[in-house]
Amino acid sequence: MKLVIIQVGKTDRGFLSDGLARYYARIKKMIGLEVITIGAGRVASMPAESVIKDEGMKIAERLKPGDYVIALDEKGEQMSSRELASFMREKMNRAPKRIVFIIGGAWGLDAELKRRSDKVISLSQMTFPHQLVRLLFSEQLYRAMTIIKGIPYHHD
Amino acid sequence: MKLVIIQVGKTDRGFLSDGLARYYARIKKMIGLEVITIGAGRVASMPAESVIKDEGMKIAERLKPGDYVIALDEKGEQMSSRELASFMREKMNRAPKRIVFIIGGAWGLDAELKRRSDKVISLSQMTFPHQLVRLLFSEQLYRAMTIIKGIPYHHD
Repeated sequence: MKLVIIQVGKTDRGFLSDGLARYYARIKKMIGLEVITIGAGRVASMPAESVIKDEGMKIAERLKPGDYVIALDEKGEQMSSRELASFMREKMNRAPKRIVFIIGGAWGLDAELKRRSDKVISLSQMTFPHQLVRLLFSEQLYRAMTIIKGIPYHHD
Repeated sequence: MKLVIIQVGKTDRGFLSDGLARYYARIKKMIGLEVITIGAGRVASMPAESVIKDEGMKIAERLKPGDYVIALDEKGEQMSSRELASFMREKMNRAPKRIVFIIGGAWGLDAELKRRSDKVISLSQMTFPHQLVRLLFSEQLYRAMTIIKGIPYHHD
């Protein structure tokens, strides 16, 4: 079983790449992790709606039957770090081959893709740049894994 | 009028310092910003309760009469980026000398300090490292200022 993160476009800000590398390395000591980056739709030449649709199709192509798919969206369900850990523990116990987290691009996630996901979770009501969301979420995944494994890191 | 951020302990992770410098520079083009760092209570030699109390007193010493004080706490009121911008616009119109944002330390914020604050806001139900919260919040402050000034950056 492994965790998969699907994201849109490369992480092009150095400070975010450094932070991500740090959390990804920590996660990989506890569980398999694959990060899939699909190309961003070209914003300048296309209306936002088409960009989202295009990115949504590219993401959908990377999903496999049996995946447990979790989309990140600010309008999704909010949970505490402990609730995320409990939720992941429960899903991991069912042993899907992959638990897939989808982080949308600059314009957000395709509505159809959100509907097709098994769960939509929100990190915050606030809007953050999608590349920054990667960093936030990598820290939460790491935190969830430490809670699941009983490694001291999180305190309430 | 200026914005003040009071935080606990230096930012000692390079990737966060780099990101913070980026957002602080952008904010300073729009409004005065001062970041005050108080020393972290020594965790190893003291129980968490005493650390929080100690940090709370050091923070309180840096507050001035007339400050509008906003504490960040995961149990505070959540708002969208637009709501934060509206809220800040309203406070700025009342023209206090300083709008002060307090970001607690590793163990959170003193309950007494939260009670004394004019407002307690939450970025997320999830728990993030306090140094990472600085980065998130600096981006939200920048975003709020762009919304207030009508500069294209935020899209819903």
